[in-house]
Amino acid sequence: MHSNLALIKRYQEFLPVSDKTPIVSLGEGNTPLVAARNLPGALGYPQLSLSFKLEGLNPTGSFKDRGMTLAISKAVEARARAVICASTGNTSASAAAFATKAGLTCYVLLPAGHVALGKLAQAILYGARVIALAGNFDVALDMVRALADENNLTVVNSINPFRLEGQKTAAFEVVEQLGRAPDYLFIPVGNAGNISAYWRGFKTYKEARRADSTPKMFGFEAEGSAAMVRGQPIANPETIASAIRIGNPASWQEAARAAQESNGKIDSVSDQEILEAYALLAKHEGIFCEPSSAASLAGLIKHLKLGTVIKDATITCVLTGNGLKDPNTALELVKADLSPVAPDPSKLKEVMQL
Amino acid sequence: MHSNLALIKRYQEFLPVSDKTPIVSLGEGNTPLVAARNLPGALGYPQLSLSFKLEGLNPTGSFKDRGMTLAISKAVEARARAVICASTGNTSASAAAFATKAGLTCYVLLPAGHVALGKLAQAILYGARVIALAGNFDVALDMVRALADENNLTVVNSINPFRLEGQKTAAFEVVEQLGRAPDYLFIPVGNAGNISAYWRGFKTYKEARRADSTPKMFGFEAEGSAAMVRGQPIANPETIASAIRIGNPASWQEAARAAQESNGKIDSVSDQEILEAYALLAKHEGIFCEPSSAASLAGLIKHLKLGTVIKDATITCVLTGNGLKDPNTALELVKADLSPVAPDPSKLKEVMQL
Repeated sequence: MHSNLALIKRYQEFLPVSDKTPIVSLGEGNTPLVAARNLPGALGYPQLSLSFKLEGLNPTGSFKDRGMTLAISKAVEARARAVICASTGNTSASAAAFATKAGLTCYVLLPAGHVALGKLAQAILYGARVIALAGNFDVALDMVRALADENNLTVVNSINPFRLEGQKTAAFEVVEQLGRAPDYLFIPVGNAGNISAYWRGFKTYKEARRADSTPKMFGFEAEGSAAMVRGQPIANPETIASAIRIGNPASWQEAARAAQESNGKIDSVSDQEILEAYALLAKHEGIFCEPSSAASLAGLIKHLKLGTVIKDATITCVLTGNGLKDPNTALELVKADLSPVAPDPSKLKEVMQL
Repeated sequence: MHSNLALIKRYQEFLPVSDKTPIVSLGEGNTPLVAARNLPGALGYPQLSLSFKLEGLNPTGSFKDRGMTLAISKAVEARARAVICASTGNTSASAAAFATKAGLTCYVLLPAGHVALGKLAQAILYGARVIALAGNFDVALDMVRALADENNLTVVNSINPFRLEGQKTAAFEVVEQLGRAPDYLFIPVGNAGNISAYWRGFKTYKEARRADSTPKMFGFEAEGSAAMVRGQPIANPETIASAIRIGNPASWQEAARAAQESNGKIDSVSDQEILEAYALLAKHEGIFCEPSSAASLAGLIKHLKLGTVIKDATITCVLTGNGLKDPNTALELVKADLSPVAPDPSKLKEVMQL
C-alpha cells in the first residue's frame, strides 16, 4: 500500500518538530533509489553493487526540498514576516515554492549572471521577489544575514539549522531502500551541507539500531571551487557545475568531520570528469541529472581507478538535482542532425541504417 | 518503512506480466498526491477537497514513464531488435531512457519544429537516434507503423497496448493516497491514452473491491487541437500546450467511452485558460508543471464556473509533466527586474520595500 505522508510526519521522531508545528509539504522526499544496470560493467567493475539516489525527483527538482519543508514549517511556527535566502539556483526555487505554499513572501538574493535558466524561471513563477546582486554568493549571504536580523525575516539558506535536519532524512531512506547502510556514499560538495546532513542521518539510524553500520563518506567539490581540498576559501570560484560553485562552504567544519569520522574523504573532480560522468549516467542508465550532481559518480570513477574502493562494495551515489534544470548543458554536449527528412519509409530506413 | 519496488512489481497482479518478464525500471511511479492549500479559497470554492497528482516527478519528468516501463520490459521479453516512436517530446524522452536502461536502440521520429528544448536534449542525451520529419505528429506515426512491421522494431507509442496498461497504475495510487476514489478526475487530453488508462485503473480497483466508487472523468483538450470536442480530426493543430498538440487522438474511442460511462465529459480549454491555470498553480500552490498539464486545472475552473461540479466534492487534477521541461513558457510569463543592485543593506531594504 501507498504512503502519502509528508516527509516531516514520516520521520517526526527524528526531527525538531512537535504536533503543533504547522507542516508545509509539497510531496518532498520518498525519492527512488535505482540500481545501476549497465555502468558497473561498462566501467570495468562488474561486481560493484551501485545505486543512485534520485534527489532530482523532489517537487522543485532538487534535494533542497527536504530541508526546506522543515525550514518553512518552522518559519510559519515562529511567525516570521517573510523568508530570505542567497542562492545560486536550487535553494531559491525550493524556498520560493514552500514559502508560496505557506503564504509567505520569499526574497531571493542572487549573484548576477551564472544562473541556469530553468532555476530562475521557477523561483519567479512561484512568486519569489528575486533581486540580482552585484557580487558573488558569499556577498549575497552576508546581505541576507544583515537584512534578516533587523526585519524579522527567516534566513532559509543552509545556515538555517532546520535545513540540515530535514536533509538527513535522505540517509534514512537510503538505509530503508537498500535494507542496510551502503559501504560508501558518494556525494557532491558545494556548500557542504548535504554531506553533513547525510552523515547525521546515518549516525542517527545506527544509534537507533535501524542500521548496523555507517558508510564511508566521499564528498566531491568541483576543482574550480574546491575550497576544502585547497584548505582555503576561493574568492571567485569557477566551474560549469553551477549548483556547487561555492568558494566558502557554510558547513565546512561539519563536512570535514563527516569525512574524517567515517574514514572517507573530501576530494575534487574536474569539470571534464563531471561532464563525462553526466553523459555516462544518461547513456548507460537512462538518468538525466544536473551536471553538478554527476560529481558523485565522477568521484567514484576517480577512486575506482585509484583503488580506494573495494571492488564488490555496496555504493550509493547521490544525484542531487534534475537534469531538466539545465537543458543547455545537455544540448551543448550532444550532436544530432535535425535537418528534416521526407516522410518516406525507404528513405527513412536508409537514414536509420536498418 | 519504505518500498523501493519497481512499479510493475508493485501492481504485478493487475498487469500483463509473468515472473519471467525482465523488468526495466528507472524508479517510475509512486508520485506524490498533494492537497491544495490555497487555491480552493482563492478560486472562491473553499469547501473543495482538491488534490494534485504530480506526474512530472516521474524519472524522465512525465507520466509516460508508467507505460514505458511496461512497454520496454515487454519489448525485451519479445526480443525486439530496437524500439521506435513518433513523439512531440515526452514520449521520446521516456522511451529513450527506458530503452537505454534495457540496452536497446531507440529511434525517435519527431515533427520538425515545435519541440520544447528540454525534451529534445533529454532524448538525445539518453542516446536516442532522433530523426526530424517533414510532417506533423500523425504523419510521423504513420511512418513508425510502416517501419516497425518489416524490421522487428517495437512501436512504443500509445498504440502499444502495454503503455495504457502501465499508465492505469496512476489511478491505483490515487485511490490509495486518498483512501478512496475521488468524485471527479480532471485530466489533460492529447492522444487520449491517459484518460483511458485512468478509467481502466479506477474500474479495475472497483471490481477488485479496493474502491467503492469510480470518479467522473473530465478530460480537456486544448482548443486549437480539440479533435474530440469538434468531432473530427484536425490536420494542423495549434496550441502552446505542445504535449497535447495532437490532431487525431490514437485512443479517441476509449476516451470517449470513459467520459460517457463515468458521467464525465471531454471538453476543451483555451491557451489563455491553460496559461492562467499554469501560473495559478505556481503562485498559490508552489507547483511548477508543464503548460499542457494545467489543462486539468483550467478545465476544473471552467466547470466550477459552469456549476457542473459539486462545491464540496473530492477532486483530483492530474498534472502530467514537469514544468522544467519548458522553462521558456515560464520566462515569457513572468516579469522581473534583474538589473544588479549594490550590496548595501539600506539600499536593499528600499528595493525590497521592507
